[in-house]
Amino acid sequence: MSGEFTNKVAVITGGSDCRKGSAMKIERHETGPRMSKAVIHSDTVYLAGIVADNPKGKSTAEQTRSILGQIDSFLATAGTNKSNLLSANIWITDMENFAEMNAVWDAWVSPGNTPARATVEAKLASPDYKVEIMVVAAR
Amino acid sequence: MSGEFTNKVAVITGGSDCRKGSAMKIERHETGPRMSKAVIHSDTVYLAGIVADNPKGKSTAEQTRSILGQIDSFLATAGTNKSNLLSANIWITDMENFAEMNAVWDAWVSPGNTPARATVEAKLASPDYKVEIMVVAAR
Amino acid sequence: MSGEFTNKVAVITGGSDCRKGSAMKIERHETGPRMSKAVIHSDTVYLAGIVADNPKGKSTAEQTRSILGQIDSFLATAGTNKSNLLSANIWITDMENFAEMNAVWDAWVSPGNTPARATVEAKLASPDYKVEIMVVAAR
Repeated sequence: MSGEFTNKVAVITGGSDCRKGSAMKIERHETGPRMSKAVIHSDTVYLAGIVADNPKGKSTAEQTRSILGQIDSFLATAGTNKSNLLSANIWITDMENFAEMNAVWDAWVSPGNTPARATVEAKLASPDYKVEIMVVAAR
Repeated sequence: MSGEFTNKVAVITGGSDCRKGSAMKIERHETGPRMSKAVIHSDTVYLAGIVADNPKGKSTAEQTRSILGQIDSFLATAGTNKSNLLSANIWITDMENFAEMNAVWDAWVSPGNTPARATVEAKLASPDYKVEIMVVAAR
Repeated sequence: MSGEFTNKVAVITGGSDCRKGSAMKIERHETGPRMSKAVIHSDTVYLAGIVADNPKGKSTAEQTRSILGQIDSFLATAGTNKSNLLSANIWITDMENFAEMNAVWDAWVSPGNTPARATVEAKLASPDYKVEIMVVAAR
């Protein structure tokens, strides 16, 4: 889906009112007409729900690796990394694949710095997708 | 559902401890016995999952328009607007309606200021509902 | 699931860059190899999706009580309480149990301080679970 996004970075400073003497500041990465892949507000980084690139025929493990690689990249662009993850929402289309997704996840996370996490089953935007992950991080 | 909510605004300043010399401040709008429609913590605005008013028989597009209109109103009351959206979670009851929801969403968002977003399929509180949207914004 | 978590608290101060003259600070509680039960960033507390202890055969009401008791405990360890809830995501495996879950929830929340909330139906990690709740709070 990255093709539908421009690579624009919008930094908005100020706004209708300022509190505590500091201006509101929102920074957006890969901002498309529907969503941004990353939105940074002060020192909190919100990523979009990320799915695998070219998912067709890819296993849950392969899709999870693709997703976590993209998350690494978005976090790097935002000036942070997985050791600063705060929270993660994971959706998988079949709980039968829970252990397979977890094996890739457990090998990826920063030991001692794991986020709060919830995983539930849900049907995703395309039947090719088996996993979707949305995280919040500090920077 | 607005009838079950009072129009109370509760501002709580202080708390058990204060950091960085600034008091914790939580502001709540349309606070009912079950949930608030908007909760503002410092400069972050959390809205409840919003569903359409009078959803019975309404299409996905009509429900999405009702929801986004309510979100505009809640954001305005919180002192902000859709150009400051940070993150959005969308649930639809049937992915067959994904494009119909997206058409209304895409026409509504502030160009260049789109939030991080995830959409998954889920059954909602009443079978009349086809869409539910929960956002986080800056103010 | 608490057996799989150590009781470690990791406090990380500083990081690659500091803004507004204050260091990034992340505090984690019950950090395991997969997730932490609570992650605190500045004055925002993110809890994991919490499920009932020993869920087998427990009703929706009993599971909800177990979950909310655990949330009370995690919030207390984080230096806060349910009157500072900002946002809640609730997943139930069958909307038929919505009213049963709500009765326990409504009796638990702090009157006048209810969070923004969304509840949708989803299959959870084990068929024994009927409810899962993930909250964000201020402290």
